[in-house]
Amino acid sequence: MTVDQYVNEARERLLEELFDFLRIPSVSTDPARNDDTRRAADFVAAALERAGLEATVHPTAKHPVVTAVGPRVPGAPTVLIYGHYDVQPADPIDLWTGDPFEPTIEDGVIVARGASDDKGQVYCHVKGVEALMAVDGALPVNLKFLIEGEEEIGSPHLPAFLEANREDLAADVVVISDGAMVAHGTPTITYGLKGLAYVSVRVSGAGRDLHSGAYGGGVPNVLNALAEMIASLHDGQGRVTVPGFYDDVLDLDDDERAQIAKAPFSEAEFRRDAGVRATPGEAGYTLLERLWARPTLDVNGVSGGFQGAGSKTVIAAHGMAKLSSRLVPNQDPHDIAEKLEAHLRAVAPAGIEVSVHVEALGHPAMTPLDSPPMRAAAEALRMVWERDPVFARSGGSIPVVADFQRILGADPVMVGLGLENDRIHSPNEKFDVVNYLNGVRVSAELLRSLARA
Amino acid sequence: MTVDQYVNEARERLLEELFDFLRIPSVSTDPARNDDTRRAADFVAAALERAGLEATVHPTAKHPVVTAVGPRVPGAPTVLIYGHYDVQPADPIDLWTGDPFEPTIEDGVIVARGASDDKGQVYCHVKGVEALMAVDGALPVNLKFLIEGEEEIGSPHLPAFLEANREDLAADVVVISDGAMVAHGTPTITYGLKGLAYVSVRVSGAGRDLHSGAYGGGVPNVLNALAEMIASLHDGQGRVTVPGFYDDVLDLDDDERAQIAKAPFSEAEFRRDAGVRATPGEAGYTLLERLWARPTLDVNGVSGGFQGAGSKTVIAAHGMAKLSSRLVPNQDPHDIAEKLEAHLRAVAPAGIEVSVHVEALGHPAMTPLDSPPMRAAAEALRMVWERDPVFARSGGSIPVVADFQRILGADPVMVGLGLENDRIHSPNEKFDVVNYLNGVRVSAELLRSLARA
Repeated sequence: MTVDQYVNEARERLLEELFDFLRIPSVSTDPARNDDTRRAADFVAAALERAGLEATVHPTAKHPVVTAVGPRVPGAPTVLIYGHYDVQPADPIDLWTGDPFEPTIEDGVIVARGASDDKGQVYCHVKGVEALMAVDGALPVNLKFLIEGEEEIGSPHLPAFLEANREDLAADVVVISDGAMVAHGTPTITYGLKGLAYVSVRVSGAGRDLHSGAYGGGVPNVLNALAEMIASLHDGQGRVTVPGFYDDVLDLDDDERAQIAKAPFSEAEFRRDAGVRATPGEAGYTLLERLWARPTLDVNGVSGGFQGAGSKTVIAAHGMAKLSSRLVPNQDPHDIAEKLEAHLRAVAPAGIEVSVHVEALGHPAMTPLDSPPMRAAAEALRMVWERDPVFARSGGSIPVVADFQRILGADPVMVGLGLENDRIHSPNEKFDVVNYLNGVRVSAELLRSLARA
Repeated sequence: MTVDQYVNEARERLLEELFDFLRIPSVSTDPARNDDTRRAADFVAAALERAGLEATVHPTAKHPVVTAVGPRVPGAPTVLIYGHYDVQPADPIDLWTGDPFEPTIEDGVIVARGASDDKGQVYCHVKGVEALMAVDGALPVNLKFLIEGEEEIGSPHLPAFLEANREDLAADVVVISDGAMVAHGTPTITYGLKGLAYVSVRVSGAGRDLHSGAYGGGVPNVLNALAEMIASLHDGQGRVTVPGFYDDVLDLDDDERAQIAKAPFSEAEFRRDAGVRATPGEAGYTLLERLWARPTLDVNGVSGGFQGAGSKTVIAAHGMAKLSSRLVPNQDPHDIAEKLEAHLRAVAPAGIEVSVHVEALGHPAMTPLDSPPMRAAAEALRMVWERDPVFARSGGSIPVVADFQRILGADPVMVGLGLENDRIHSPNEKFDVVNYLNGVRVSAELLRSLARA
């Protein structure tokens, strides 16, 4: 029997089991659902046990982490599969066509909260392992699972859990399926994520808000100063001018640029979606190169002085800006936050006091395109979807991916099994049945190809 | 009998009458006090009648305007005296040492709401006229009074009243006593006020707030753009770079610069008061020259994007700034608002939509230092205070002063009779008895000297 045949024969049961999983309203942000998140953790552990692994439910300060380990396979690589069993709230409920926690299938589409993000994708792997066990009687790799229950609230306890279980969780490769294919029928491997350095900047000038008539022209205006400081962050070519900002940036090589140029991407669609009339950015790079592979520095918020209707002739005592940089390999978020702070202090006009508070830091992550795990993932996707996968990077940050790399030494392989239009975090979240069943196949083939890598 | 003798003999009555005026709680912003503002208007009209003028109380949509006219004096100049009978609220009441509307005298200081701003100063002129009538039996000029009841709420009906009564109110000189001497015993003439052009600027980029991971590096960031636009308003020398901004600026000549250099002004005290460590501004001018006589362009407020605690990785769809320019003669507020808007549009980065809303406009005002009314005022002050007056300009804007100049053709002569430390608008407002009595003398001598000018 082949994996394909197994999946075809078990089709109805695979759907039924996923539906049972989807019926558990494991909303991690809602304390009233704590029993449900616990129930979802137990459900995952039981499913992993049935698939032939040894599962454990680890309590944390909030929602449990489920781990599982397969039979030891000497000489084979170790693969860790990561996912999460918690889901977003279903609000606004009245925009759903049915009960968010009573899955339905219509026109080949499963509709339920968590169908794509991430219960459906987690279950692809659980059932992929089950299929391999049934078809081959054994697993080809040393397999581990790590399925958390706090992803939708920022994974607050996961880094500490990784540190504490560093040896038990150590792996060569970590497989993450918590994303999407770039288009229907187009298998996609995400091989890079940006990091993040996010700071709040406070500028102070006068001892109190001053009357602009009595003091204008004679005192530092913090809001003019803040604008000058922000304007000084970029040159006329859209390049960041913070000294040393690009020092550690891994440049795009010709191969990767060629790869990115081939990615299915429509600038017109991007403009329509974002509602923008221009796509400005760093000179010398295409739009997609900038979105995926070049570091950015954006103002996320500003405030200061009079913000109401009408006029108030005040020179404010304080101003505030939120600034964040999306980082690429091999930039270090601590280093960039420090360089940003140093630059802001250096350019602050006379009489302006600057204080910088670091709000969030996240490392970028990347797996080299030509590495064995990448080639293995490409092979598995090609086998199941019968076409070459697209290699994509993302401008977003998933700090936990860098944590896997940093703490566990595992190369991340991000294989999104859903679609961009799955309405995750929105009403009527969905997962195509073909994506689910092919996801099971991808999981099984991926473990096989990783064993050969 | 001399004016001096008259004032000395009438001292107690002059104080008693002022106290009666101060007892009327004519708080213009409080509708519950509308009967009191009406009572204060009637009080002023009656006092002007007793002084020998013909007074009229004109209703407006809110508080009445009191006008009065003296006997016709052929060949003599026409002088209009402006002031206001309304007062600020007394809040916070519990910081007053007594009842704000029950005046007291202690150590030669009258304490009551309105004592200095502006009932006390209005009454100096009423009693100055009375003294002249008593001593000389006639007035030396064609005299008019205009005492309004809405100054503390922005004089909303005054410009229309001036327009409607343009001929009746026409004057060669308008005397305004609604300010302060720069120091105790230092008579002061304010000969220039700044104007104002205040706009709100709204910048729009994306169609909605965007995720900085998914869109950063590929879309216009309105807040970065707004900062660049604001930063572009000044050069490295603190000069405003808006094209044409300085075109109509009346330059300081050597005489005036010498005059300003002699004005009693302590930069150390200014820094302490404002709580600033530096006094930056336009290169080539002293601090006081900038405060008094150079136009400025200040940000009064900014807002956009995420302004809360912590971090939110958003690229905002909109941003807002409030900008205002303090204008000097002969800048025109409409013209400057237009030039500012044109500049903002010109420097807006690609993909940024700019909308500008004019919030407030006010003309600057100035009376030449070497003009006859100025010399007359200086002479009167010298006579009463026995020292040379200080000539001061102000960075503040009193739009009605420019209206007198523009609508009535009257040269403003601003003679503040109070002191900077009179606590106007604050608890325990005061007016020194010597300022009151010398104010009566100044009023009488000023009318005499204006007759000779």
